Amino acid sequence: MAGEFDLIDRIRARVVARDDVVLGIGDDAALLQPPAGMQLVVAMDTLNTGIHFPHDTAPADIGWKALAVNLSDLAAMGATPAWCTLSLSLPEPDAAWVDAFLDGFDALARQHAVALVGGDTTRGPLSVCVTVFGFVSPGRALRRDATSVGDEIWVSGTPGDAAEALAQWSAGGARDPALRALRARLDRPTPRVALGLRLPGLAHATIDISDGLLADLAHVCRASGVRAELDIDAVPVSDALRAAGLEPDTRRTLQASGGDDYELCFTAPVGARDAIVAAALEADVSVTRIGRIVKGQGVVATTADGELWAPVRAGWDHFSG
Amino acid sequence: MAGEFDLIDRIRARVVARDDVVLGIGDDAALLQPPAGMQLVVAMDTLNTGIHFPHDTAPADIGWKALAVNLSDLAAMGATPAWCTLSLSLPEPDAAWVDAFLDGFDALARQHAVALVGGDTTRGPLSVCVTVFGFVSPGRALRRDATSVGDEIWVSGTPGDAAEALAQWSAGGARDPALRALRARLDRPTPRVALGLRLPGLAHATIDISDGLLADLAHVCRASGVRAELDIDAVPVSDALRAAGLEPDTRRTLQASGGDDYELCFTAPVGARDAIVAAALEADVSVTRIGRIVKGQGVVATTADGELWAPVRAGWDHFSG
Repeated sequence: MAGEFDLIDRIRARVVARDDVVLGIGDDAALLQPPAGMQLVVAMDTLNTGIHFPHDTAPADIGWKALAVNLSDLAAMGATPAWCTLSLSLPEPDAAWVDAFLDGFDALARQHAVALVGGDTTRGPLSVCVTVFGFVSPGRALRRDATSVGDEIWVSGTPGDAAEALAQWSAGGARDPALRALRARLDRPTPRVALGLRLPGLAHATIDISDGLLADLAHVCRASGVRAELDIDAVPVSDALRAAGLEPDTRRTLQASGGDDYELCFTAPVGARDAIVAAALEADVSVTRIGRIVKGQGVVATTADGELWAPVRAGWDHFSG
Repeated sequence: MAGEFDLIDRIRARVVARDDVVLGIGDDAALLQPPAGMQLVVAMDTLNTGIHFPHDTAPADIGWKALAVNLSDLAAMGATPAWCTLSLSLPEPDAAWVDAFLDGFDALARQHAVALVGGDTTRGPLSVCVTVFGFVSPGRALRRDATSVGDEIWVSGTPGDAAEALAQWSAGGARDPALRALRARLDRPTPRVALGLRLPGLAHATIDISDGLLADLAHVCRASGVRAELDIDAVPVSDALRAAGLEPDTRRTLQASGGDDYELCFTAPVGARDAIVAAALEADVSVTRIGRIVKGQGVVATTADGELWAPVRAGWDHFSG
């Protein structure tokens, strides 16, 4: 069994080095040097066991996901990630668990050159809280209130995969390789940082789909004072989700209301289409037009047949999910 | 019962306004404008129920303490507080509980003009994670590795009160008004921000006593490569702690090893004595010289009789406490 300070030493040994970290883990607080003239972008998200990930999630996947969901928030602002802090509550100070957790956390931190600069380890039910810090030039952040009537709605990737993986897990676990591919999307979401960095100047409002496409689009509509028309059958379906053989309405509901995809949903003027496709190609992620912004309020979804459509269950609220 | 977004609205309604918050609660991330030329100081601490506060702690006191323990870390760096983020995990989305929590959180936030700029609310065992942000001029931060041989060791306030309150609570609760005064020191610690701001240029190493005086002094000694000689009977005793009528060794142990006091311990050259006393007077807190820094390593404590002294139990580790 390790003590708190042993765990901190294990964590410190694996931190990404950055010149702008004046003083990292080990003092009362971290000392950081923000770049001149930039705005600081800060997001904070907690993952609790059994709420934000299944109890049987591998420690390395928990580590990855804890950072990924936070980097996704920076991506949705168009920010460049720089630093993070980590608060880790564990029932027991289990060094092997922490090492495995760090395997996943560090793998993603290194991809984005994010330095872990502080936080704490403490006793409690398994819970991981991360705060991430990034930068954006003044006026360039992708805000929810920046949509205009006439914009088109875009989404990255293939929403619904994580929700189907969760449904499969609830029903007893993944049954074949295609379902294990879905589980990877639940456990190791890819924060769309590379895409987010290319969207300022092209996209208007941008949000990450952590609560589900409908719920997150509703946030944009409320902030911007507009209405979103969503073509639900235009939302792309992954091969793995298609292989699950779901009824169309069940599949649509997972895609519209399932949380945890961490794809980006953004709005942009029609004239930006080609530039957005080019940016997505550079960022190595697919993007798809799935609707448009009109006058009014709220979100309406329509099927390919032109029928109004509503999900089996609405939204995602971490107090009801 | 309230949902996640209702709770966020309740929290947002009470936030301190600051001109350097470009975009606060409500988007994927906060947008902040750090002051030019300053270093950013960041600390993060989690409080879990039953570990960091007794289960019967009032919600307002939990709110106060969650911010206080973090501001204490900024104080120990000599930093000016500015912003914070809050992640609140609750078993149920209880609006009355959140309102009471915010009463305590806001009371302290307003004292220090700290703006809450983001975070999340989620379901889980009661847990509060706060990240605080402050500023310090380059080269002015109070680091643990800055002590020199010949320095004197100082402490603010009257350590031991919080530990006695916790001992009383464990034994069945406070029995008289003096003990209730101790409980207030456990539940509503005063972060020594005003003192910390006056120490750069006077003090060398500075640390907050969250883990206990001996354990925290040991951190300073390890970081600075020196030895601390502690006059245990010079550590000031509050009237309330004296009224508890403890055996001297029990009282010394609480003062040397009890955590949760959030006083500052700092080292300074002899020539700074008068300036330190004047700074403490301005900051409205008592300061006392309790030892000296010598060559060597580790911490040794001596009683007023010149006897070597060791506590009944050593240090405070959040995995053993």
